[in-house]
Amino acid sequence: METIPESLRAAETRSRELEERIADGPGAFRILTGDRPTGPLHLGHYFGTLANRIRLQRAGVELIVLVPDYQVITDRDVADHLSEYSEGLVADHLAAGFDPSTGTMFKHSAVPALNQLMLPFLSLVSVAELTRNPTVKDEIAASRQAAVSGLMLTYPVHQACDILFCKANLVPVGRDQLPHQEITRTIARRFNERYGPVFPIPDALLSAAPLLLGMDGQKMSKSRGNAINLSATEDETARLIKRAVTDGERHIGYEPETRPQVSNLVLLAALCQDRDPHAVAAEVGDGGAAALKKVVTDSVNEFLRPMRARRAELTADRAHLRGVLAEGNERANAIADRTLDEVRAAMAS
Amino acid sequence: METIPESLRAAETRSRELEERIADGPGAFRILTGDRPTGPLHLGHYFGTLANRIRLQRAGVELIVLVPDYQVITDRDVADHLSEYSEGLVADHLAAGFDPSTGTMFKHSAVPALNQLMLPFLSLVSVAELTRNPTVKDEIAASRQAAVSGLMLTYPVHQACDILFCKANLVPVGRDQLPHQEITRTIARRFNERYGPVFPIPDALLSAAPLLLGMDGQKMSKSRGNAINLSATEDETARLIKRAVTDGERHIGYEPETRPQVSNLVLLAALCQDRDPHAVAAEVGDGGAAALKKVVTDSVNEFLRPMRARRAELTADRAHLRGVLAEGNERANAIADRTLDEVRAAMAS
Repeated sequence: METIPESLRAAETRSRELEERIADGPGAFRILTGDRPTGPLHLGHYFGTLANRIRLQRAGVELIVLVPDYQVITDRDVADHLSEYSEGLVADHLAAGFDPSTGTMFKHSAVPALNQLMLPFLSLVSVAELTRNPTVKDEIAASRQAAVSGLMLTYPVHQACDILFCKANLVPVGRDQLPHQEITRTIARRFNERYGPVFPIPDALLSAAPLLLGMDGQKMSKSRGNAINLSATEDETARLIKRAVTDGERHIGYEPETRPQVSNLVLLAALCQDRDPHAVAAEVGDGGAAALKKVVTDSVNEFLRPMRARRAELTADRAHLRGVLAEGNERANAIADRTLDEVRAAMAS
Repeated sequence: METIPESLRAAETRSRELEERIADGPGAFRILTGDRPTGPLHLGHYFGTLANRIRLQRAGVELIVLVPDYQVITDRDVADHLSEYSEGLVADHLAAGFDPSTGTMFKHSAVPALNQLMLPFLSLVSVAELTRNPTVKDEIAASRQAAVSGLMLTYPVHQACDILFCKANLVPVGRDQLPHQEITRTIARRFNERYGPVFPIPDALLSAAPLLLGMDGQKMSKSRGNAINLSATEDETARLIKRAVTDGERHIGYEPETRPQVSNLVLLAALCQDRDPHAVAAEVGDGGAAALKKVVTDSVNEFLRPMRARRAELTADRAHLRGVLAEGNERANAIADRTLDEVRAAMAS
C-alpha cells in the first residue's frame, strides 16, 4: 500500500510545478478533457472540474473539450437523449465562461478518424499491462472475467487516442484516473522511441478541488438524485438542500473527518462564497441545521444565478449550441487529419 | 479433439450449399477479403485464394479487396516498402483478371472511419471470449502473456470492423481462420439483437484449394525464399524449381501422404495444366526428378506467361495502379460513411 501514496505525492509535486509553468507561459499548453454526455452537469462537476478548466482557459491555455458520445452510446438509456445531453454540456460550458473562440468542444462520433490510432497504439501495449488497470483488475478478481468487455479492457487505449490525436500535453485528472493517464504516457513514449518524435508526453494535472458530497452524504451523482444541477431552478435547489442529511448537534463546525455531512454543506456554502469554510461555520455558530441550510441555499442560488440566466438564454437557441459543436467538430477533424498524416509518415520512414 | 473436425465438417457442408446459392444468384453476395501488403504474391496465393476470388467475381459476386496497410505498418521492414507492395497487390489482382469496374480494392489507412466501429463492437465481446482465440491462447499458455499485445488480442474485432463496415456477407477463409470469422458473426448477431438489424451475418466460404508447399517442402512463404512469385521471371522460376527438394525414387507418383515433396511438384504442374495430378505423374513415369522438374517449369512458366505480360505492362504505369486504389478508397469511404450513419441511428433509437 506504500507505492500509491508515493506516486500520488510525486504527482502532486509535479502538478504544483506545472501550475508555475502554466503561469509563466500558458501558450505552451493544450488541454484535452471531457464529460460523458449522460445528463446535466451539477455542482460537483462545477467545483471538481469545470471551474478549473475555465480558470486555465482564462489563463491562456488552449482548451479542448471532448464530448465522448460514442463511448456512452452503448448505454441505451443515455443514447435516447444523446443530442439533448451533448447540447446541454455545451450550454453548461458556455454559461460557466467557456470561450469558443479560443477553445474547442467536439463530439467523438463526429471525428471517426481519431479511432485509427487504435491500431498502432494497441500494438504498443501488452494484454498484461491492460489487465493491470485497477478497474479491470477488480472485475477479474471478482472472477467475473466474462463481465469484462473488450471495450472496458481497452478503455485506456481509447483514452490515449482521445488525448494524443490532438497532441494535448496537459490532462486534468482526479486521483483515480492516474493509472489510466499513465498508459497514455507509456504509449506516447513508446511510439516516439520506435517511430520518431510525434507525440508530447502528456502531464497529469491533479485537481486541488475538494470532494463535494451529494445531499444524502454519498458521492454526488446524477443517478443518485442527490446532486444540485447547474440548470436546476432556485426552488428545486432549496428543496434538495432542505432534504440534506445532517446530524443532531446544534453547533455547526467544519470537521470533515468526524462530521462529513454537515461539513459538506459548510464547504458548499464556502465554495459559493469563495470563503474559508471555518469562517462560514463560525458565522452559523449555534444556529443549527436549519440556519446552515438557509445559508447554503442562499449561497448556491446567488452563486449560480448569473450562470443560470446565461444558460437559460443559451438553451433557448439550440441552433447556436449545435453551431458551437459543428465548428468544434470541424476543427477537431482538421487536427485529426494532420496528426494521422504525421503518424503514417513517421511509421513508414 | 472431436469438436474441431465436427465444426469443420459443418463449415464444409455449409460452403457447398453456399456455392449452390452463389450459382443461383451471385448478385446477392458481397465478399470482403484481403492480402497483407508484405511483398509480392506467389503461386501459393494464386491457387489458394486469388484464383478463387476472381472466379467468384466472374460469376457475378461483388468483390471488395482490403489492403490492410495500417495493420502491417507496425512492422518496420514492411513499412519501408508499403506503397510499392500495395501497388504490387493491385497489379497482381488486375493481371489475374480482377475487374475494377465491378470490384473495389482499397487501403485500410485511407478509410479511417471504419475504425469507429471498434467502440460498439468491443463492447459486444468479453475479454474471456477474446482470450479463447486460439492464437492468443497459445501465447498465453506459453506463459508469455506479456508478449500478447492489445492489437493481437483485439485482432478478431478489427477483422469484424473490416468485414462489417461494408456489410459483406461472404468471407473466403482457410480452416485456421474459422474461429476469427466466428467472432465477426457473434458481433453482428449481438449488434442486431441489441440495436436492430443493421448487419448481415457473414458466412465463411471454406476454400477447396489444396495446400501448395514451397520448393523446400515447407509451407510456401515470402520470407522463406521458397515461393514462386507471380512476378518472377522465367529464369528465376526455373532456378527455384531446379533447387526443389525431391526423393531418391526414380518413379514419379502422386502420393501426398508418403512422398510430399514430389507430390507437391506434381500438384503444381497439374494445377497449371488444369489436369488431374495422377495423370501428370503417370506421364513422367520413370523419368525421375529431372524430367518432373522440366514438366513443372514449363507448366508454370506457360501458365503464368500471359499474367506476367499483363503485370509488366501494369507496373510500368504506377499512376494507373494508384488510380485504381484511389477510386477504391473513395468507394470504400462512401460505404463506411453510410454504414456509420446507420449504426449511429440504430444505437440512438
